[in-house]
Parts: sequence; C-alpha cells; structure tokens
Amino acid sequence: MTVAPHTFDDLHVGQVFEAGPRRVTRADIATFADVSGDHTRLHTDPEFAAGTPLGGLVAHGALSLAVATGLAHETGAFETTVVAFRSLEVSYDRPVFPDDALRLELEVAELDERPKPDRGRVRFEVRLRNQRDKIVLSGHWNLVLRRDDDAAAGG
Amino acid sequence: MTVAPHTFDDLHVGQVFEAGPRRVTRADIATFADVSGDHTRLHTDPEFAAGTPLGGLVAHGALSLAVATGLAHETGAFETTVVAFRSLEVSYDRPVFPDDALRLELEVAELDERPKPDRGRVRFEVRLRNQRDKIVLSGHWNLVLRRDDDAAAGG
Repeated sequence: MTVAPHTFDDLHVGQVFEAGPRRVTRADIATFADVSGDHTRLHTDPEFAAGTPLGGLVAHGALSLAVATGLAHETGAFETTVVAFRSLEVSYDRPVFPDDALRLELEVAELDERPKPDRGRVRFEVRLRNQRDKIVLSGHWNLVLRRDDDAAAGG
Repeated sequence: MTVAPHTFDDLHVGQVFEAGPRRVTRADIATFADVSGDHTRLHTDPEFAAGTPLGGLVAHGALSLAVATGLAHETGAFETTVVAFRSLEVSYDRPVFPDDALRLELEVAELDERPKPDRGRVRFEVRLRNQRDKIVLSGHWNLVLRRDDDAAAGG
C-alpha cells in the first residue's frame, strides 16, 4: 500500500508508516553476501550453519537493515521528500531465517525544524517484525526531509 | 591482507584492523537496489540524479554499511570468533559515488567481559574512507566475540 509523498510539514509525532511483508529468500542472502563481500559461513554455508546454535543459515544483520530501507521506500511516503539519511542506531534483536516475511513500522518520534528553512530533521523509530510478529530489528533513523514551499517561505 | 582469527582475549583497546580498498560500482548499486527493494531514484535513475545537488547517482547509505561489514569479514579476524552482531550506530558522513574505492578501519574501543565466561562484548569504532581519505561512514559496532578456551575455563 503506497501513500502520498510526505514532507516534513505533513508529519506529526506518533504517525506510523507501514510496509511489507517482504520475504527474505536464500537467494537474497546469497546476493547480499556477494554485494557486501560478507561471506561469513553462518550466512553462506548451509552445512556449517546447521551445526551452529541457530541451526541453519541466517540473513546478515545488514541485510535486515537493507530490507527495512527497501520497505521504507515502498511506503511511497519519502521518495521525493528525503534530503538526506543522516544516521541510524539499530539493534539486531532476533535472527532472520530464509523465507521469513518481514514487515516495517516506521513511527515519527521527533520533529526538529532545523537546520534550514526549507528542510527539517525527523527522527523515526523503526521496528522490523517477522511473520510471528516478533521484532527482529529495532532502533532509530535520523533523516532530513524537505518542507512545504509555503512553510519554507514563512520560515 | 588477512590476519589470523581474533578471540575476545586477543584484543586490546586501540587495536586497529584494516581492509580494502573495495570499489563500489554502478552494478553494485543496481544489485543493492534490487536486493534491498530501495529503488529511490537518486540511486537508480542517472538522469534524475544528475539534476540533484549531488550531480549524479550515489550509493545507498545501507550499501556503504554493507560494504563495511564485507571489509570486516575480509580482515579474516572475526570469521570464526563472532558470536553475535548486537547493534550499531553509524552516520553517513559523505556520499559514495560509483567507482569510489572504500577502505575500512575497525578500532577496538571498549572491551567488556560480560555477558558469559565463554564470550565478551567488544565495541568497535568504525571508519570507512574513500580514495581521497575522506570519511564516508563512521560510528560504532557492538559485537560479542568468543573467548579463549582457557580464559573461559578460568572465568
């Protein structure tokens, strides 16, 4: 479900954007190993992974994060309004296994009119859940979004 | 240059691991758009990107982070000793353009013997630099590494 583009001025604290589910396949994990260069055996060697406490292949944490950013794109809310993705803090709360289906919740946590009249800082709380509704990744993303033209003129 | 595996007990604060350069190609950015699902035009549409303040396509921030994890893998230091990648805080300091060549510096910032006798927590300071030695990504990663067997027995 895609929503309209949201500028800084369209947001309020507590507002939630959702996307997904997105299934993470074994092929996605293999592709991610190649593009990242992270061929750690827990992510690439099924036999080795079967002998670990997790019992099998798991997705890279950075892949879960990548999928979260893809789901954020899929909301449609920010494609034309993001000026910059400044920083993030996330924890990898649970492993993501092949064929897990992930859903994103992106909640507006803080709004700051700086740094310029034509843009504002948004801090989002991020939650990525699996098909059992368990959080696999959580944290915060700090973005800069452009403001409405009239707000910028008034600022 | 690959180094030997490093357990928690092999580390000291200030120790630095390095890897790279790794060139990030336009093909890498396209692959990353597909696997993440983030098809934001700044990353996928050369004509659109040419009209933005950055003047052309740039890599996804999450791709820079992915490349940093791949370079960490390439050091060889942690392949068999990482128990978990717990969390991270990073900022995207500068854009990464196609064909930029990135180098990783991973510095041991804090060592904490918790949470169990057979493993310890390591906080790394992370710096990813481009071919002009400018930092494009910086922050911290929090990992759990296994300890030496004799340290575990003594702990």
